[in-house]
Amino acid sequence: MSEVLDRLAEVLEARKNASPDSSYVASLHAKGLNKILEKVGEESVETLLAAKDAAVSGDHSELIYETADLWFHSLVMLSHLGESHEAVLEELARRFDLSGLEEKASRSK
Amino acid sequence: MSEVLDRLAEVLEARKNASPDSSYVASLHAKGLNKILEKVGEESVETLLAAKDAAVSGDHSELIYETADLWFHSLVMLSHLGESHEAVLEELARRFDLSGLEEKASRSK
Amino acid sequence: MSEVLDRLAEVLEARKNASPDSSYVASLHAKGLNKILEKVGEESVETLLAAKDAAVSGDHSELIYETADLWFHSLVMLSHLGESHEAVLEELARRFDLSGLEEKASRSK
Amino acid sequence: MSEVLDRLAEVLEARKNASPDSSYVASLHAKGLNKILEKVGEESVETLLAAKDAAVSGDHSELIYETADLWFHSLVMLSHLGESHEAVLEELARRFDLSGLEEKASRSK
Repeated sequence: MSEVLDRLAEVLEARKNASPDSSYVASLHAKGLNKILEKVGEESVETLLAAKDAAVSGDHSELIYETADLWFHSLVMLSHLGESHEAVLEELARRFDLSGLEEKASRSK
Repeated sequence: MSEVLDRLAEVLEARKNASPDSSYVASLHAKGLNKILEKVGEESVETLLAAKDAAVSGDHSELIYETADLWFHSLVMLSHLGESHEAVLEELARRFDLSGLEEKASRSK
Repeated sequence: MSEVLDRLAEVLEARKNASPDSSYVASLHAKGLNKILEKVGEESVETLLAAKDAAVSGDHSELIYETADLWFHSLVMLSHLGESHEAVLEELARRFDLSGLEEKASRSK
Repeated sequence: MSEVLDRLAEVLEARKNASPDSSYVASLHAKGLNKILEKVGEESVETLLAAKDAAVSGDHSELIYETADLWFHSLVMLSHLGESHEAVLEELARRFDLSGLEEKASRSK
């Protein structure tokens, strides 16, 4: 299943320069970085609300839908800035292969 | 590279019931859903700020780091609610295999 | 100028039960808490982006506009839950009259 | 009660150049805009979670506390950028005095 991210990233690259009229992805790129970041922020908020509702109702469908929206728009953000999802996966691999996830906890924020 | 998500999800499941003193992941689960959602929200905000800075400076290192944090904490959220990252990837696959990503644009929010 | 909040809160109360077709405020109440919280979250994100842009451009007009949107929708949220803006102002007064704003810093979060 | 905002804004200005060791407000200014915006974002998320919990439990204390934190940190943001809370209140007054709050609904976002 994990190859979905690779295939989705390919689709996003292909649509980056499509006509904004025919492609939602192209329309986001045409509107620019702030619009894309607004969508990442919106989907983040909708994910939090869906998680709260899922914890009460036991119905996870909105949670899955909104998390997919969040990941999708974060991939569009990376693509817009000329960055790859692979760099993010490499960062995650680096953390838990070399020093373990506990490294995160010790990082001063 | 995409198998990183599968391996990370395995690690997260293994640490779900570890001692909160020894594992950052276990400490998040012990603190509960609100704490995990606060982290998802925080990392989302830090991702937006890193993207704005990356667009000005051209340095993408913080963007990659914060996006990794965002994905990581969203995986912890899914795990906390007994949900799998595979359900999110299936939702993404469903969208662009069957009806295309444009389907997203037509959904009234 | 500060009496604006009092007058705005009165207007919001008056429109709470207006027709959703004629009043933006009534339409938010009709859509329910999640929709109102989505708006608070969206306006928060738009405020952050406007602040980043203002720091670069020196133009504060979007910052003021989005902060007004954020405060406005947080007032609608309070009204929806039967709560008053005065309770929030009392909490702020309590903090800096009695123990000073530094009290905030010492609160473990 | 609404004069609290004016008095709070005065306190914030006075502490803007205090020692970061003695004042939470001064420490935020010393850390810079991103840190202040991270706090605005965090308090926004905590407000949303508190609102969801308040709707279930009927206990509004966390909602009031977190909304106060959100307003407080948005005032620090305005102060950091050399902007006044009065500009935000004037924007709110302009909206509902001249054209009514419905004007908001017709603005394309």
